Amino acid sequence: MPPFDVPEGDPFGPHNLPYGVFSPSGSTERRVGVRLGEYVLDAGAAAAALRSPHHPLLARPTLNALLAAGRPTWSQVRHAVTAWVTDPAHRETVEPLFYLLSEVTLHLPFEVADYVDFYASENHARNVGQIFRPDAEDSLTPNWKHLPIGYHGRAGTVIASGTDVVRPSGQRKGPGDPAPVFGPSIRLDIEAEVGFVVGAPSELGKQVGLGDFREHVFGLCLLNDWSARDIQAWEYVPLGPFLGKSFATSVSAWITPLDALEHARVAPPQRTHPLLPYLDDSTPQTEPGGYDLHISVAINGHVVSEPPFSTMYWTAAQQLAHMTVNGASLRTGDLYGSGTVSGPEESQRGSLLELTWNGRDPLELPDGKRAFLEDGDVVTLSAWAPGADGRRVGLGEVSGRIVSG
Amino acid sequence: MPPFDVPEGDPFGPHNLPYGVFSPSGSTERRVGVRLGEYVLDAGAAAAALRSPHHPLLARPTLNALLAAGRPTWSQVRHAVTAWVTDPAHRETVEPLFYLLSEVTLHLPFEVADYVDFYASENHARNVGQIFRPDAEDSLTPNWKHLPIGYHGRAGTVIASGTDVVRPSGQRKGPGDPAPVFGPSIRLDIEAEVGFVVGAPSELGKQVGLGDFREHVFGLCLLNDWSARDIQAWEYVPLGPFLGKSFATSVSAWITPLDALEHARVAPPQRTHPLLPYLDDSTPQTEPGGYDLHISVAINGHVVSEPPFSTMYWTAAQQLAHMTVNGASLRTGDLYGSGTVSGPEESQRGSLLELTWNGRDPLELPDGKRAFLEDGDVVTLSAWAPGADGRRVGLGEVSGRIVSG
Repeated sequence: MPPFDVPEGDPFGPHNLPYGVFSPSGSTERRVGVRLGEYVLDAGAAAAALRSPHHPLLARPTLNALLAAGRPTWSQVRHAVTAWVTDPAHRETVEPLFYLLSEVTLHLPFEVADYVDFYASENHARNVGQIFRPDAEDSLTPNWKHLPIGYHGRAGTVIASGTDVVRPSGQRKGPGDPAPVFGPSIRLDIEAEVGFVVGAPSELGKQVGLGDFREHVFGLCLLNDWSARDIQAWEYVPLGPFLGKSFATSVSAWITPLDALEHARVAPPQRTHPLLPYLDDSTPQTEPGGYDLHISVAINGHVVSEPPFSTMYWTAAQQLAHMTVNGASLRTGDLYGSGTVSGPEESQRGSLLELTWNGRDPLELPDGKRAFLEDGDVVTLSAWAPGADGRRVGLGEVSGRIVSG
Repeated sequence: MPPFDVPEGDPFGPHNLPYGVFSPSGSTERRVGVRLGEYVLDAGAAAAALRSPHHPLLARPTLNALLAAGRPTWSQVRHAVTAWVTDPAHRETVEPLFYLLSEVTLHLPFEVADYVDFYASENHARNVGQIFRPDAEDSLTPNWKHLPIGYHGRAGTVIASGTDVVRPSGQRKGPGDPAPVFGPSIRLDIEAEVGFVVGAPSELGKQVGLGDFREHVFGLCLLNDWSARDIQAWEYVPLGPFLGKSFATSVSAWITPLDALEHARVAPPQRTHPLLPYLDDSTPQTEPGGYDLHISVAINGHVVSEPPFSTMYWTAAQQLAHMTVNGASLRTGDLYGSGTVSGPEESQRGSLLELTWNGRDPLELPDGKRAFLEDGDVVTLSAWAPGADGRRVGLGEVSGRIVSG
């Protein structure tokens, strides 16, 4: 079936049009692509063929030039690309510029500047608190309802979906061990997250307000924040996670523009604590900050969890406002993760730590029990969001296979 | 006095030759420079004039190409530059390519990839432990003697010496406050550190051993890890420092090559705990991992502390081995800070937190008392290391002025 004839119900139809970077079969040249159904359009070639003024942003090896261009240009380019792939007048010119997805190599779509990871799901934070601090009066730390807790991660080890993940080695120390031991992690885990991609930069010393979220953030992707729980547990006091996370963070090869998710915007959960003005999204003028993304986590093709992103307590707009409230600047290519998405139900938890309650209740998979990940396991996150007229907007999946170190 | 006639005792003589990036007066063009005394040599222009094969690495707007070239090339370039600025045969060609330091603008010398900050001074860690956890049995956390604790910081807000630092705003909550309040930080502090600059990258999934430190690390600089203690105290449990640090990290404009510091290498302090093999530098084959750097901290020109870098418990080689032991890759331009340098004496503490014991004992400066930094304060770190024949090797200073937000 030719690309223009994408079926009506396809979650990657012309209402979606996520951006990525691909190489045609047999080539190592990187090109900006736009996904349509099971095809990818060579966006730079299409821009050249149709003499688009946006050609300089699209004939590139990464999305960074497009990301840097800012919201008005993002809308213009999306408008143009939509016409290219839907207007019958362009069909003859554009159709030869599509490649079958199955015949291209997909790459990390942008150069990551800084990577920040948040901790925005109340269900996740409470589960983790109960597991690690069972005697604490409150499973949340005292700051949790007042600010979106976050920390910086390693930008250099953000990898594209499909890249193998080498099981990390490191120090671990169980409560009964007299001294730490060294070896491959034996508690390798996932964290199902959504990643937000900053396009337009901001100036050092200037805060980015809640209302400026859409001026700076281009789009989102799925993100798997692989976590070695044994390494993390021994290292993280007092300065936070480091080697337990820094070996790899996988992102989907497709960045979904916020413009494709207009119909997925929802109000976040009711706030239980008053918020300081720079985080307060309860005023009537504030646009809904949540996104109704339906995530699915599969291990070796078997779905183990379906975390609902709409349950996240802190929104991406609040996270951006918080990240910059101290004057920290944004750069094109900054990536920030939502934090593990866990819903209120057991079947909605976004990590094995929670799904197996720290290994106590292993999952029963068709190929055996799992407390944590084994070598050879393939973890795949996928998701959809509601679009107009009952359509679904698909997010690019993020997948990774564990290989021994 | 012309550049070739730098006085014998000058800490920036031809035995030093740090690299930086400058713009001549009236120009915005960035060029690689080499410092000699109170002058900077236009290294790209010199390479062109002398038809050096290293011209492509030096005729650049940043040091990144040189950094990426690796140890053998670093040595060749240093050898060549030394000849350019000392051989009388080159004097007529090279001398016109010097600029007076006072007449150029200095820039951030390299594009920072990832920024990591460690916590490697036992004196600093014990002081902080006593201040923040006075009831703890041990002022060190149980992991401290087993691994160099570190965390990722914000690469995008690493700034060059001389750039103003805007006082950050954020949330703070005193023990008596019923809820957090928002405002400019009232406990703005410094951290006197040494920064290590990675040149040669490493592969994802591969560990970099202790013995490979000099193959990957090009040189070092002074680093001031500005810290808002009030913001940090409220946010840092459980995921570590974030906005209390991410507003700015200042580095000196000059990167001192490790090759200039051969005579400054010293053994680190005696280890009190056995180390896992990947961190064990006690074997006779291991080269001394410490550096005998004499740091000086001045506020508004008044010296308030003289932290000795030779007292650091964890070495830069151990930090690099630890940072990559989980398979995390290195990129050209990665920067990692040693952590605050504090010696055993009160006059050797590298932060106001320690110098004033969390504000209890303000410093008496000529212009008044200081518990923490006030707007207008200029903080300057400088340092020297022993060179051959009783010479001193100067490190480029790092300076920053606090301005109101």
